[in-house]
Formats: sequence, C-alpha cells, structure tokens
Amino acid sequence: MARPFISFLSDFGPDGAAAICRGVMLSIAPDAQIVDISHSVRKYAIRDGAFLLWMALPWMPVGVHVAVVDPGVGTARRPIGLLTRRGDILVGPDNGLLLPAAVALDGIRDARILDRRDWQLQGRSSTFHGRDVFAPIAAHLASGAPFEDVGPGIEPASLVQLAFPEPVSRAGGLDSTVLYIDSFGNLRLAGTPATLTAAAPALGPGSRVRIELPATPTRAAVREIAPWARTFGEVAFGAPLLYEDSFGRLAYADNRGHAAERLGVAEDAPIRIEPA
Amino acid sequence: MARPFISFLSDFGPDGAAAICRGVMLSIAPDAQIVDISHSVRKYAIRDGAFLLWMALPWMPVGVHVAVVDPGVGTARRPIGLLTRRGDILVGPDNGLLLPAAVALDGIRDARILDRRDWQLQGRSSTFHGRDVFAPIAAHLASGAPFEDVGPGIEPASLVQLAFPEPVSRAGGLDSTVLYIDSFGNLRLAGTPATLTAAAPALGPGSRVRIELPATPTRAAVREIAPWARTFGEVAFGAPLLYEDSFGRLAYADNRGHAAERLGVAEDAPIRIEPA
Amino acid sequence: MARPFISFLSDFGPDGAAAICRGVMLSIAPDAQIVDISHSVRKYAIRDGAFLLWMALPWMPVGVHVAVVDPGVGTARRPIGLLTRRGDILVGPDNGLLLPAAVALDGIRDARILDRRDWQLQGRSSTFHGRDVFAPIAAHLASGAPFEDVGPGIEPASLVQLAFPEPVSRAGGLDSTVLYIDSFGNLRLAGTPATLTAAAPALGPGSRVRIELPATPTRAAVREIAPWARTFGEVAFGAPLLYEDSFGRLAYADNRGHAAERLGVAEDAPIRIEPA
Repeated sequence: MARPFISFLSDFGPDGAAAICRGVMLSIAPDAQIVDISHSVRKYAIRDGAFLLWMALPWMPVGVHVAVVDPGVGTARRPIGLLTRRGDILVGPDNGLLLPAAVALDGIRDARILDRRDWQLQGRSSTFHGRDVFAPIAAHLASGAPFEDVGPGIEPASLVQLAFPEPVSRAGGLDSTVLYIDSFGNLRLAGTPATLTAAAPALGPGSRVRIELPATPTRAAVREIAPWARTFGEVAFGAPLLYEDSFGRLAYADNRGHAAERLGVAEDAPIRIEPA
Repeated sequence: MARPFISFLSDFGPDGAAAICRGVMLSIAPDAQIVDISHSVRKYAIRDGAFLLWMALPWMPVGVHVAVVDPGVGTARRPIGLLTRRGDILVGPDNGLLLPAAVALDGIRDARILDRRDWQLQGRSSTFHGRDVFAPIAAHLASGAPFEDVGPGIEPASLVQLAFPEPVSRAGGLDSTVLYIDSFGNLRLAGTPATLTAAAPALGPGSRVRIELPATPTRAAVREIAPWARTFGEVAFGAPLLYEDSFGRLAYADNRGHAAERLGVAEDAPIRIEPA
Repeated sequence: MARPFISFLSDFGPDGAAAICRGVMLSIAPDAQIVDISHSVRKYAIRDGAFLLWMALPWMPVGVHVAVVDPGVGTARRPIGLLTRRGDILVGPDNGLLLPAAVALDGIRDARILDRRDWQLQGRSSTFHGRDVFAPIAAHLASGAPFEDVGPGIEPASLVQLAFPEPVSRAGGLDSTVLYIDSFGNLRLAGTPATLTAAAPALGPGSRVRIELPATPTRAAVREIAPWARTFGEVAFGAPLLYEDSFGRLAYADNRGHAAERLGVAEDAPIRIEPA
C-alpha cells in the first residue's frame, strides 16, 4: 500500500513551528511522506498562501493537504476540510485560503467542519491550531480515517470566499494587477494570455507591448516597452519581458534581474498592458 | 519495524551544511525519517537553540535528536549523548544546548561522551563535527546501536548548564525578560501565567495589564496598556496583547503586527508586567 | 530493495517552486528519499550552485542528483545527464553547474542529452524545466530506468566548462580569491593548504599570516595579521583566523563573527596570503 501523502503550507517561518506540526503528523502517521510546500508565506497573507497553494497542489500526488495562514486562529472562524473531485482532502481554516486550490483540483465534492475531538490534540491551545487541530486531523485522514467522520457537512456556498483579482479589458488594452511577486522578483499578473489577446487582438508572442504603472507616493509613473517573449534568455541581460508563466498566467520580469525592485511595485499594484 | 526517527536542529543556515549531515545520516540509516526542526537558529546562539529544542522535542516521536549550535567546535568541549526517561537520545555538544529539552523529555536517564570512533567519519575535521561526529553517531543510534556502546558514562551534574531566565515577583508585578523573539515578532517571555497571577493575584485572562520596558540607547522607555487575551483576534488589528502561548508561557504580541520591531526590543530585554 | 535516492539543489527560493518539483518526483517515484541540498543558491549564480554541489554530493548516498540554476532555461542550452564513475546520475542544464561535482564523484563515465519525451511532462513550459524536464526525468532514473535510454550520448569535452578560480603563487605568498561566502560570513578561498605551503614554505598551522585585500570603491585596502589556526575557538571572540575548512580548502573567518561583512568583501574579491 502506498505511503500516506501529506503536503503542508504555512506562514510559520523558520523557527520550529512547522517542524512541530510535522512531528505531530509523524506521531500519528509514522510512514507519511510529507512535502513542505512553503513555510515562508508572507505573515497573515491569506491570498499569497491561496495563490501558492493553487500553483502547487495540482503537481502533488493525490493526498491530504494542510494549509495554515490563520490570523483568526482561536476566534469563531471555522476549521474545515474539503474533499475534492480529484480525491484530495484540504485541511485548514475557513478564510478563503483553500478555495482556489480546491477549484484547481476539479472542485469540491464535500465540505465539512473539523469537529472530531479525538482526532485533535488534548488541551488544545487558542493560538496554535496548526499543531493542535489541523496537523493531527490531517494525519488521521492521511492514514485512512473516513472523511465523513471528521465532522458535520456544510454547504460549500457557506465557505468564506477568496477570488484572485480579474483583469479588465479597456480601450484596446488590459488593466491587470500584480497578484504575487515571486522570489525572483517576477510579477505574476491577473489574467492569461487569452484575456490579453481578447483585449488587444493585434498582440501575441513576439509582439511589443507597452507597460504602464501609475505613480505612487514613492515614485513617478512607469511607462516602458517590452517584448512578449517566450522565455527570459530571449531578451538582453537585465531587459524586461512579458511572458506566459509556467502556470498559464501573464507575468512580467527582468531577465536575470528583479523587476519588482526595479519598478518599485508591490502586490495589488495596477498594471496596464497594451500594444506598443 | 518502525523507521528510525531523527530530528535535527542547527544554526547552519541555508547553504548545504545541514543537507550534508542529512546525507551522512542517510548513508548509514537509509530508511530514517528525518525532521529538520530548524537550521535558522541565530548563529552561535546556544540559548535560542536550546529554547527551540525545548519547544519542539516533546511534539516529536520518540527518537534520536541531533542539535548543533557549537561555537566551541574542535576545542575541548565534549560531544555528548543524553538518554532521556521518555526514551529519546539527544546528541550534540556539551554547551547547555540539550539540557532544557532533556528536562522536558522527563529528564536524563544516562549521559555519555560520544567516544566511539568507528561510528564517526574517518578523517574528522576540526570545524564540522555536525557532519563528522554528531550525524553519523546519531544515525548509528537511530539504527539500533546500543546507547551504552557510544562512550563512557558521565555524571549529569558535570554537564555544562543552561537555564532560561526566571521572572521575579516584585511590588505587585512581575519582572520578566524577553527570552525569544519568534518569526512573527512575538515576544516569548520568562515565566508562566501562574507566576504572573502569583505576583499579581488580581490579574487573570480578561484583565488589563501595564507593560513597561526601560529606556535603551536607541529609544525611550515604553509604557503601554494591553489586555490579557486568549488569542490574537480578540484585539483590534495592530493592537497589543498579553497571552499564554501554546507552550504554557507568557508572551506579548501585536495582532497581525511585529511587536519586537514596533517596540525596538531584543532578546534579554527586561519587561515588567503589572495590573493596569 | 533500497528506496530511490534523489538530491535536489536550485535557486528557486522559498515560494513553492522546489516543492512543486518534489511533488512531480514523488508522483513518479512515490517512495523516493529526497534531500534538498539548498534552494537558496544566489539567483542565477551558476558558480555558487556548482560550489555547493561540489561540496555536498560526495556526502550523499549514491543516487540521482538534480540541480537547477538555469538562467538559460528555454533557450538552446542543452539539458544533460552525467553518469559518474561513483555510480551517480547528475541531471541539470549544460551550463557548467554539474561539472565540479561530477569530478568529485570520480569523474564522468557517460554524458547524455535529456531527450526522452515520455519521461518529461506533457505541455512543457519554456520557463520551468525544473518541473517539466529535470524532476520527472530524475524520478524515472531514480526508479531504475536505464540511463542509456535517456537520450543520445555526447562528448564530455563538448560540455560547457566551469572551473573554480585557482590561486597563484607569487613572491613568497599566495594570490587567492574569495570563491564563496557561506552563511556564517566565512570566506571560502581558492586553494588548499598545500598550495599555500608550496608558495610560502615557512607557513603551516600555528604560523601567523598577513592578509591583504586591495581597496575597492567603497573601502580602503585591508591589511591584517591572523593566525593559521585549527578551529574557531583557538582565537579570541571576534578575532580572525585562517584555517583549513572541512572540505580541505583555505578559508578565512572571524570567530563568532561575520568576516565578509566586517571586511566588506564579495565573491571574487582578490585576497593575498603571506607570512606575517
């Protein structure tokens, strides 16, 4: 029989909290194969966590996926489990964190409150449900405990919603948004190549685009031209490019540079793309 | 038979030294389940390492636990192994690093010098005993080699001591200390809720407390009021709270903020807590 | 039968890309034992990656080793596999990254282009060959797929070369170079103790050496005396030392300090060592 598979994402950082959850999981499921997706999610940034989870989970084996970016820990926010149509179980807080990934795993088949007390640690704290609730329940589920025993079912429509921003087609261009800045400084944007070519039919890979970022309190507006390229090495060292990232989204980067720093942009910055 | 379990903590940072130790362990114990507790311990900060180990090890399966924060590597400091009453074996330098965790694992049953040459790497270096001494000995022990064969027994009383600072009850309040600053910027303090209520019997969860930090060369004294809350979400966004952390200690934090940065405090800063 | 062993190094950073590759590998080789050597290699720094790989791989079990520092992803640079005389298979881009490690694993026995399409992911992207090419091919090889089936053989002499800088003996001293700065701030230098004693026969462990760093635009020249010591703790707190690092190379460090910051040096800085 295959080893239980668990993936794990959090904003816990490097100082032991994620390892403690791993220890709890392995105490219950000693043979589990656990993959840490990231524990460096920006603190409290639910959407960042949701985006990384959305990116990563389709590439994981079917299994149990724990995610904890949980500023509401210990309050009335619900602990939930989502059974996906692909066959995974997602475990975490009901704050939107799990939803985009669940959609990417073919959608929610069943949603439940994590209510089963004997699958949680005794003496549950109010500040560390990763350790006391989510990790042990995930380990029980990964070991084969039936999902329907985890707690009462809930309506998927009752879940706290989280959606990524959508681009808007306007005047022959696309008004997009910086959705995420990755560790290379590349801007992951709202929208796909198809939304861009729908807005500006003349554009396509090989075209030149004009990028516009409005002024901010700390810098002037930015206006620059870049090619829509297939990969980084097609432009000069340090030069910018628009490209389709490896998850099918629009992205903007500097070849071997850090575009976000050069441009002085943060997440949620508006960015307009139009024919040059 | 269960897979050998090894946990591993160090201040080695991200550039390969911890992985090298892991490679050495897996060369000896190919089926080991290894959990990295943290390799981001502040460089040379033995007490930080001891604190993280004390926090984490009780949540790990019984096994072998390697810890290396070892500024005295290659000098006369002794390499030691501690068999705990819970059944774990702790492996590392005799500089205090292992002691608080050993106490948390029900105390030391047997202490030994790591003297067994054929369980170490040949051609031992003077600067990387994590790789050459601790990792291979841990892997042999995790694979079932008897602890009493690792080297001669020593008196636990002869071990280099390390104790966490203790709070002092004075004039109706508690003089505590910042013991550790976690990656959220939360201040982990000396003392427990019981020590605080013993010092100030009027206080308890729901009370309001006054926090005082003396002036430092870079900022004035701080004096502020905060509730003793159960969890972060009970106070406003950005507001401070005193709480019992998930390890039974006093802690001070900003809800979704970074209290240590806001307050300009470092480890060992004195902090006074009294009724508001 | 032993579990397949895979090691993995990249400059992907902490936000999920390395975990995605791990997920792909485990989807193909569910029982693989995967060791992350580092994913914090300086972005695009092929030589840093090559150095860390050279350091780490000899300590890993024989297995498949994936390395991705790949600024040329999606361009004409070749994806390659190298079978070493030790029995390992190295997988990554043909940009020099793998070569020093292959030499350290007793040299290259066979070199091939990674050409096998059914061992790669369908719908390969132009920007993430770690996920689409290197991880899945590594997992197939680790699961026992024959190396000679991965693609056509190539001449090792045709591989893109990468060599570490070599020190130069001159006027009774050694002109070396800062090859790598580790996370402790220690300077890993070009050359071995033997090259230094060949250049300056009077020197040896216990001698005193003079270190010279030429002026840079941001600081004056540095000239200081330090002992050639065996380990850090032999010099005073904060004092510098020359030593043989645990990989047999010359290194320069401050005991419990960060020499690179104190001296204001970066990689490739020239450093002269001579008798004091």
